[in-house]
Amino acid sequence: MEMEALVSLAKQRGFIFPGSEIYGGLANSWDYGPLGAQLRMNIKRAWWRDVVEQRNDLFGLDGAIMMNPKVWEASGHVATFHDPLVECNKCNHRFRADDVQGTICPDCGGALSKPRDFNTMFKTQIGPVSEQGTSVYLRPETAQAMFVNFKNIMQSMRPRLPFGLAQIGKAFRNEITPGNYIFRTLEFEQMEIEYFIEPETWETSFETWKQWMLDWAKTTGIDLAKVHELEVPAADRAHYSKRTVDFEFDFPFGRKELWGLAYRGDFDLTNHSQASGERLEYTDPTDPKRKFIPHVIEPTMGVDRTLLALLVSAYDEEEVNGETRVVLRLTKEMAPYQVAVLPLSKKDELKAVAQPLLQELMRSFRCDYDETQSIGKRYRRQDEIGTPYCITVDFESLNDQQVTVRERDSMQQVRLPLSQITHYLSDHGLTS
Amino acid sequence: MEMEALVSLAKQRGFIFPGSEIYGGLANSWDYGPLGAQLRMNIKRAWWRDVVEQRNDLFGLDGAIMMNPKVWEASGHVATFHDPLVECNKCNHRFRADDVQGTICPDCGGALSKPRDFNTMFKTQIGPVSEQGTSVYLRPETAQAMFVNFKNIMQSMRPRLPFGLAQIGKAFRNEITPGNYIFRTLEFEQMEIEYFIEPETWETSFETWKQWMLDWAKTTGIDLAKVHELEVPAADRAHYSKRTVDFEFDFPFGRKELWGLAYRGDFDLTNHSQASGERLEYTDPTDPKRKFIPHVIEPTMGVDRTLLALLVSAYDEEEVNGETRVVLRLTKEMAPYQVAVLPLSKKDELKAVAQPLLQELMRSFRCDYDETQSIGKRYRRQDEIGTPYCITVDFESLNDQQVTVRERDSMQQVRLPLSQITHYLSDHGLTS
Repeated sequence: MEMEALVSLAKQRGFIFPGSEIYGGLANSWDYGPLGAQLRMNIKRAWWRDVVEQRNDLFGLDGAIMMNPKVWEASGHVATFHDPLVECNKCNHRFRADDVQGTICPDCGGALSKPRDFNTMFKTQIGPVSEQGTSVYLRPETAQAMFVNFKNIMQSMRPRLPFGLAQIGKAFRNEITPGNYIFRTLEFEQMEIEYFIEPETWETSFETWKQWMLDWAKTTGIDLAKVHELEVPAADRAHYSKRTVDFEFDFPFGRKELWGLAYRGDFDLTNHSQASGERLEYTDPTDPKRKFIPHVIEPTMGVDRTLLALLVSAYDEEEVNGETRVVLRLTKEMAPYQVAVLPLSKKDELKAVAQPLLQELMRSFRCDYDETQSIGKRYRRQDEIGTPYCITVDFESLNDQQVTVRERDSMQQVRLPLSQITHYLSDHGLTS
Repeated sequence: MEMEALVSLAKQRGFIFPGSEIYGGLANSWDYGPLGAQLRMNIKRAWWRDVVEQRNDLFGLDGAIMMNPKVWEASGHVATFHDPLVECNKCNHRFRADDVQGTICPDCGGALSKPRDFNTMFKTQIGPVSEQGTSVYLRPETAQAMFVNFKNIMQSMRPRLPFGLAQIGKAFRNEITPGNYIFRTLEFEQMEIEYFIEPETWETSFETWKQWMLDWAKTTGIDLAKVHELEVPAADRAHYSKRTVDFEFDFPFGRKELWGLAYRGDFDLTNHSQASGERLEYTDPTDPKRKFIPHVIEPTMGVDRTLLALLVSAYDEEEVNGETRVVLRLTKEMAPYQVAVLPLSKKDELKAVAQPLLQELMRSFRCDYDETQSIGKRYRRQDEIGTPYCITVDFESLNDQQVTVRERDSMQQVRLPLSQITHYLSDHGLTS
């Protein structure tokens, strides 16, 4: 699959638009159109359900984007998210100054600029402009809210190890080289878990989460043949991590990180305990004298990269009657629209059948309604946006109260009584 | 109801924690704990379902928080969100410097400070720190993404008037006086609709949306007796608005704006057309020669204020056997947990019954599981977090395979066979 085809389809069909497009855009930002916004919603909803609602050992959290700057000092971000960088005057690639030898671009041979200071955290000011207000950062990750609230969680929820916190939310990074479509952007949405454990159980817990991530990739429709586990070598890991696995994915622009799984030890809770003076520790309920700082396994996923991996996995082209059919083979859960109701023409008689059917189906499923253009073009559109079922209302429907149900992948059509449609779709795995 | 009681309950029970608390907080920011995060999720999910998924005339959108600065010039925010302000040293109210005569506070007679420059939009920089990067604003409202993407929506979705766009997302305002708990904060989440109409239909459309907002308040559990419509007088309306209605709510700290409904005319699309040079117009499908800029009705709601209104509406205290029972009478849809499974003791025999029941119920409902403390204390906790049903597993359950179901509001208890619990709860209106 060519990246251009996907980007074009995503724009034409309402998944992803260039951000601020009518004003010439802004730094590789993107806006999600109706189909993309729904797909994002479906991803987040499935994750939250599977992680928070259908588990008893995980709790949701929704922390503020702006936190006290001391958070980012304790977490190490103020020190480490701040680099001198050089930029090639020819290809505009940027490098950490200490990664390049000399003044020549290692990629294209162009001349490199002098080092410039680059802070990956966005900074803004609270308070009046004319005075020195409080400088705050936009969070570069959602994780820290889960550490900073550890004590509040212990007091309000009284959880027992192992337990985790889960959060969905925006994070911001002043990326040196944003790009590759929605792969790397200045703002992105994370789905992060901090799973607190007894230190000695870390290896088992790590394996369990690794498998969970693979299982979740599969059920959401990510092509596992394109997913590769990368054991991050010790030299490349953060110094606090004893093990990190990157899940890489074969994007059209190369094999790149999709999700990450890290064993963070007690790094964060220890640092925040020291910096804040609060005791962020756990008391063994079977032995109240035993107090310790739990260790942490961190499965991190991004909404945007997950969405891109889903689109890449689902995108397919096939020959049908000498023509190329483009179809998004999204799962029934992820598909933005699950059913499309298509009256054969705009005539009022057909509307009289199609509209009540639509109203009925909308109570159970996400539905589109389309009465313009030829039925062939409308099927093509529904295939391209991944709608699993199309229901065509034709003039015969007026007589026999039956409609045609077309399945996206097989293109098989069956004719069924109007009264059975909801039941038929539920039986075939559709739930909203 | 006293505000202190609600704030205390919300912290103790895991709804809302002070932001960055272990570091002394940050400018009235708040983090939502497990219960609050779920309540937010339930509000957003219900809104998105009712607005986007179960309607055929509205489309979702999810735009970037950072937009090209030209957006905020065209929208009027750069000019109008930038004021010299004076502050009263006694009541801390702040006023535009040109709105007050002299140095005396019009509210309390205190002394006013000298004017200070205050920009309500947060500003940050994209690019290297050491140079003048691109200054961008954090969006002060989600609305503009819906206007800026108007052409992309027309091309990809081909909608017919009337139709709307709907968006949920964070917005940021450098508020002069944040406060009143989660009522006014620097970052907040909006649920906004821009509904595009034929200009001459605006009055009918306005009335329809006004009624829709009241209906939605009712179904989510907002106490309508506390809701008041305020017809904003012409002098107080934005200059482009021919009608604005504020829905005010009786918060414990006074009657304040909850939601807003504004008729914006063609102000935004016209401004963006002029500023960008793009033709943001609509072509009448029945008369392709007739091109015009649609008018807009804008129902705006905030997640945070909605959540606060829900808590205030739901909070109740009553005398039971000489003691005060605190109960959150949240609807079954909004309640963070819908069912709590409570084995009478921690004994393994009870776990053997309670755990499989929990696993079964979690497939259909949001469930809590609690086996610590006395059953009375556990009921009290579930009442305080608004859980509609508690299911107690006792030693008799081992013999008769029956459990006790307690309903939150009536405190009525019924004993039912384990095999009927899911069915019983579904019959009583529980759906996740």
